[in-house]
Amino acid sequence: MHNFTFQNPTKIAFGRGVISGLGKEAARYGRKALFVCGGASIKANGVYDACMKSLAAAGVSVIEHGGVKPNPALAHARAGAALAKKHGADLVIAAGGGSSIDAAKAIAAGAKYSGDLWDFYTYKAPIQEALPLLTVLTLAATGSEMNCGSVITNEETRQKFAAGGPPLFPKTSFLDPEATYTVPPAQTAYGAVDAVSHLVETYFTTPEKSVNLQLELAEAVTRNIISSSAAALKNPRGYDARAEMMWCCTLALNGILPAGLGETSFINHGIEHSLSAIYDIPHGAGLAIVTPAWFEWKRARGLEPRLARFAREVFRVNEPQDSKAAIICVDRFRQWCAGMGVPVRLSQLNIPSEGIPEIAANAMGLFKLWGIEGYSQKNIEEILTLAK
Amino acid sequence: MHNFTFQNPTKIAFGRGVISGLGKEAARYGRKALFVCGGASIKANGVYDACMKSLAAAGVSVIEHGGVKPNPALAHARAGAALAKKHGADLVIAAGGGSSIDAAKAIAAGAKYSGDLWDFYTYKAPIQEALPLLTVLTLAATGSEMNCGSVITNEETRQKFAAGGPPLFPKTSFLDPEATYTVPPAQTAYGAVDAVSHLVETYFTTPEKSVNLQLELAEAVTRNIISSSAAALKNPRGYDARAEMMWCCTLALNGILPAGLGETSFINHGIEHSLSAIYDIPHGAGLAIVTPAWFEWKRARGLEPRLARFAREVFRVNEPQDSKAAIICVDRFRQWCAGMGVPVRLSQLNIPSEGIPEIAANAMGLFKLWGIEGYSQKNIEEILTLAK
Repeated sequence: MHNFTFQNPTKIAFGRGVISGLGKEAARYGRKALFVCGGASIKANGVYDACMKSLAAAGVSVIEHGGVKPNPALAHARAGAALAKKHGADLVIAAGGGSSIDAAKAIAAGAKYSGDLWDFYTYKAPIQEALPLLTVLTLAATGSEMNCGSVITNEETRQKFAAGGPPLFPKTSFLDPEATYTVPPAQTAYGAVDAVSHLVETYFTTPEKSVNLQLELAEAVTRNIISSSAAALKNPRGYDARAEMMWCCTLALNGILPAGLGETSFINHGIEHSLSAIYDIPHGAGLAIVTPAWFEWKRARGLEPRLARFAREVFRVNEPQDSKAAIICVDRFRQWCAGMGVPVRLSQLNIPSEGIPEIAANAMGLFKLWGIEGYSQKNIEEILTLAK
Repeated sequence: MHNFTFQNPTKIAFGRGVISGLGKEAARYGRKALFVCGGASIKANGVYDACMKSLAAAGVSVIEHGGVKPNPALAHARAGAALAKKHGADLVIAAGGGSSIDAAKAIAAGAKYSGDLWDFYTYKAPIQEALPLLTVLTLAATGSEMNCGSVITNEETRQKFAAGGPPLFPKTSFLDPEATYTVPPAQTAYGAVDAVSHLVETYFTTPEKSVNLQLELAEAVTRNIISSSAAALKNPRGYDARAEMMWCCTLALNGILPAGLGETSFINHGIEHSLSAIYDIPHGAGLAIVTPAWFEWKRARGLEPRLARFAREVFRVNEPQDSKAAIICVDRFRQWCAGMGVPVRLSQLNIPSEGIPEIAANAMGLFKLWGIEGYSQKNIEEILTLAK
């Protein structure tokens, strides 16, 4: 077991009706909130109204900054930080999925910074302070509601970069499973793939010497993401499935599962970030394309025993030989994604083979920034070639 | 899935050599620390010296309050709070197992309170503030290093009561598995039983409508407590086993596992508290006696399916019939404890049958205080009779 430090101060308010507590909690941090959200969905499903009602009752005024898009854009975050400064907002509230929360994190840090908030993402400046952040989650996927990371895309430079630091932990996150009833099937499926990918990055990219406990916990969460997302796709308004999926996705990236497993490299996320920075595809789709290709590539490079274990414990594959079970694991992963209608090949999203070198070159930039070692541009091209 | 609120701000520094960071962390909170510890063990195994060296280097002075005993005593905690007030201590450091940490929590809260700290334990006063607390753990067992609960025994009134509240969360806990190398076999075994009992209270005492994810996580932690404690008993200086056991015990009571499972009643702990308040037996031994007896008593009162599941998932019992698997579960639980040399019958600790009514009456007081419903004194006597 490797040494580790764990701390996660975010308060989770989970369950039916919890959004009514938003105003009271917000009032602990200030009187003027920048409210960051996406498009029409939270207005259609009642979440927006529930937030506004609760905030008004608590005497918290709102400056709205809507229009967050999937793969949230730097320009939009910069505008949000400027708006927060202009109005003297004393807290930020995100309502939506991981994109809204990640944008709100960028804004919360940017509002307390005299320079350009992109500095955080290029590691030119650490995040030393941020406005207090509260979140209202409407999509089970990224785990951003209970971690201190944020991913933003610089559309000009085609860079999808990540930043993080303790000031970005949300103070309180409100998780009402009913707020996810109206999530369309595709986004439900992408969310499941995203959450499993977070587990995969830990489960597979840590050194071999590891702890059984942490692997078992990751397997339990993965099995339950798979079962609960299947149930949610079948019955989108089934409370228990939506609830279980929501909590699974939070646990998948709140720091508990990698504890003691050593350094995690977000290899698949690194490659996917480049893919969606260039082609603006859904993050979950990109991960469903990259991850099994990385499995294939890495299988003969030391990953076989862990893949075999994953096949047995997650997909319940009854195959005693590691070599065979590992191959089955790759297939089963792709079948799982494809069965939910998620693309698993570059060609399904019309990304041409000729584009591979550009994606790989972009990814190399990110690998360098994140300190991921042991991969050449040629290696990444090989992985992407397995995803054609 | 039931609504829940989760928050746990404690920072965990885990691994070899982490105690050297104590001073730096302590200096964030003050310059004068009340140092709460037990007897000779931390002086013999080097933990005391490591703490003092680190604190001195960081300029933190120490007022020592040693002599904490298992089932920590109210009188000793009162004396600690008085000492902290007298010297104007601005933080409390606990070094030891759960007893030292629980005593330190009582002292930290008592030092900021004008009344008698026993008020917290009788629920006459809520814990509204406390001195900052840091802990250095030397025994894997109670989980007190990452929760906000404390158990103290009033030796005069024979009451072993619990108190808690957010101010009692340790700021930082240092978990070096090497600090547990010298824990004797009996205490290692008691620790394993205690941690499993924490899981049991959640796993079995919550309503039937539940979430599979949380049950699977609890099963994973339980399996790994059993395997790691067995390995630690076999090889007390095996790092990985000591590490895995330490982290398991922390996870067993840090609030993550009961999330969404509804109200937890600490039934077995309630009965055990009375047992050890009257007979001053080790907490782990008391739990090993009470828990399987409660299983037996409760089996025909709705617990059969959950017992059967526990038998299959934790003890790997291959029995398809719930009625049979549930009976096997009780046996296997006792066998597990007894196999580590832990008593599983009152008679093994020379506690006479005639004492049962007094224990049950004492427990009823605690059940009333804790709001545990559905048990009469006669019921508790029946349970204890099954533990003769």
